[in-house]
Amino acid sequence: MQSFIFENPTKIIFGQGQIKRIGQETARFGKKVLLVYGQGSIKNSGVYDQVISSLLEHELLVVEFPGVRSNPVLSHAMQGIEIAKREGVEVVLAVGGGSVIDTAKTIAAGVRVDHDVWDFFIFKKNIQAALPVVTVLTISASASEMNAAAVVTREEGHQKYSIRSLHIQPKVSILDPSVLFTLDRAYSAYSAVDAITHMLEGYFNNSEMNPSPLQDGIVEGLMKTIMGATETILQHPDDYDARANMMWAATLAFNGLTTAGMGQVALPVHMIEHSLSALYDIAHGAGLAIILPGWMKSQLHCKTGRFARLAREVFGIKAEKDEEAALAGIERIKEWFSLIGSPVLLKEVQIPGQDIEKIADNAFALAQVWGLRAYSKEAITEILELCA
Amino acid sequence: MQSFIFENPTKIIFGQGQIKRIGQETARFGKKVLLVYGQGSIKNSGVYDQVISSLLEHELLVVEFPGVRSNPVLSHAMQGIEIAKREGVEVVLAVGGGSVIDTAKTIAAGVRVDHDVWDFFIFKKNIQAALPVVTVLTISASASEMNAAAVVTREEGHQKYSIRSLHIQPKVSILDPSVLFTLDRAYSAYSAVDAITHMLEGYFNNSEMNPSPLQDGIVEGLMKTIMGATETILQHPDDYDARANMMWAATLAFNGLTTAGMGQVALPVHMIEHSLSALYDIAHGAGLAIILPGWMKSQLHCKTGRFARLAREVFGIKAEKDEEAALAGIERIKEWFSLIGSPVLLKEVQIPGQDIEKIADNAFALAQVWGLRAYSKEAITEILELCA
Repeated sequence: MQSFIFENPTKIIFGQGQIKRIGQETARFGKKVLLVYGQGSIKNSGVYDQVISSLLEHELLVVEFPGVRSNPVLSHAMQGIEIAKREGVEVVLAVGGGSVIDTAKTIAAGVRVDHDVWDFFIFKKNIQAALPVVTVLTISASASEMNAAAVVTREEGHQKYSIRSLHIQPKVSILDPSVLFTLDRAYSAYSAVDAITHMLEGYFNNSEMNPSPLQDGIVEGLMKTIMGATETILQHPDDYDARANMMWAATLAFNGLTTAGMGQVALPVHMIEHSLSALYDIAHGAGLAIILPGWMKSQLHCKTGRFARLAREVFGIKAEKDEEAALAGIERIKEWFSLIGSPVLLKEVQIPGQDIEKIADNAFALAQVWGLRAYSKEAITEILELCA
Repeated sequence: MQSFIFENPTKIIFGQGQIKRIGQETARFGKKVLLVYGQGSIKNSGVYDQVISSLLEHELLVVEFPGVRSNPVLSHAMQGIEIAKREGVEVVLAVGGGSVIDTAKTIAAGVRVDHDVWDFFIFKKNIQAALPVVTVLTISASASEMNAAAVVTREEGHQKYSIRSLHIQPKVSILDPSVLFTLDRAYSAYSAVDAITHMLEGYFNNSEMNPSPLQDGIVEGLMKTIMGATETILQHPDDYDARANMMWAATLAFNGLTTAGMGQVALPVHMIEHSLSALYDIAHGAGLAIILPGWMKSQLHCKTGRFARLAREVFGIKAEKDEEAALAGIERIKEWFSLIGSPVLLKEVQIPGQDIEKIADNAFALAQVWGLRAYSKEAITEILELCA
């Protein structure tokens, strides 16, 4: 096990009927609230009403900032920063999924500085302070509700980049699994893909040279939980226990727990996917389901043992030879992504083979920002060809 | 899954060579430090020197308070409170295992009030504030380094009772697995028993009526990790990876992670064990290894399904009938505790059968304080008879 620092101060309030506590929790951090949300689905689901009534009950002043879309964009976050500055808000409340929370985090960091908030994304500046962020989660996948990261796309240049700082990590997040009852089939599936990919990037990072049976066991357990819960959810969207297991598992999948002790974890699958959603605005989970199997195939010979372990522990594959087990495992992941209704090839989302060079250019730029030296343009191209 | 609140703000700094950071971390909370430790083993192991030199490097003023023994006592903690008040310390640093950390937590809470600190243990008063606590862990088992609880024995009446408050939870804990290289065989085994019992009390609390596959998977994974690591440690006490896996697993075993979503978890095994260590001053882990199998036998008919699941998932028992699997599982736990060198019967620690009534009286008093109504004196007596 490698040395690590684990620090995760987010207070999680989990369970049906807990949204009514948001007023009390938010009031601990200030009087004037920027309420960030998306395209209005929270109004249909009733979450908006629950939030507003709790905020008003605690006499909070609410400035609304709706309009976040999936694959959230910098220009919108910058409008939010302007409004937050002008209105003098003291706390940022995100009500939504990862896109909404990431926009809220970006606003929280941007309000406290005079320079361009994008400087944080390209490591030109460090986040030194931020407004407190609190959240009510309505789409489970990103774990943004309990981590320090945010991802936003700068439209100019199609750059989908990220920031990470404890200052922007939510102080409090409320997770009510029953709000997921109305989440559609596609997003329910993409949530599972996203959570699984978050864990596997760490899991594959591990090696026989530096074994971490503890983290392996947690990841395998959570992955089986997510797969089982997702299969139930697709049959019974309002199964509370399945939604609850999925919701908490997705949070634990990327809140630092599964990677503590695994060393520096590279996220090459996320890196290449960012180019897909930045260039084509496809759902992040769909993009991951396309890239992950291709990336695994490209790494087959250097990560045979890890892929074989996953195949045996999660899919019960019996093959004796590691390479055989590893290959079978890759196929099973791909099949399972298909089974739950996700695309697994570029052509299924109408991205033609001749676009690969453009995508590789975009991903290579991020590889340089993230310092992933193993990912040359050629290496990325090769991976994308395995996803065609 | 049941509703829950999860909040665990402790910053963990994990790895070989990390103790040198204690000065910097402690300095964030104050200038004058009460250094709490035990019987001096930290002087032989070199940990004391590492801590002092880091504290002095950061120009901290150190007031030493040694002398904590296992099964720490109230009178000693009260001396610590007096010294801390007189010296005006601003932060309490525990360097040791659970006993030292629990004493430090009790001092931290006691310094801020004028009444008897015992009032917190009998729920006469609530903890409203405490000095900040930081720790350097030298015996892994209690998870006190990352939780809100403390256990202390009031000698008069042999009352081993506990407190729980976020105010006393460590702000920072440093875990260096290499300090465990010199931990003796007996304590290495008791650490495993303690960590396993912490998890199983929650795991058995779960039910077929309210399944939590997510938590089940985490507990089973951690339990297998702890068992495997302990077997390695007993052969090779200086195996870094085994010590590291054990150390982090023991922390996760009782930091709130494994019980989040399991509802109110009763700790009947800990409750009865507290009477053993309060009355006979035996090692807590040894007492747990004696009580757990007896308690399981007493619960066989109401928890058959849970015991059977453990037997199959952790011990690979194939028996088809649940009751058969459950019984085999209980035997396997007992055998494993014996294998690693722990006593598993009262007579092995020279507690005669005729003392059972006295022990039951003591445990029943705690059952009333903890509100465990199912545990009448008769029920406790029956369990103890199964441990004779």
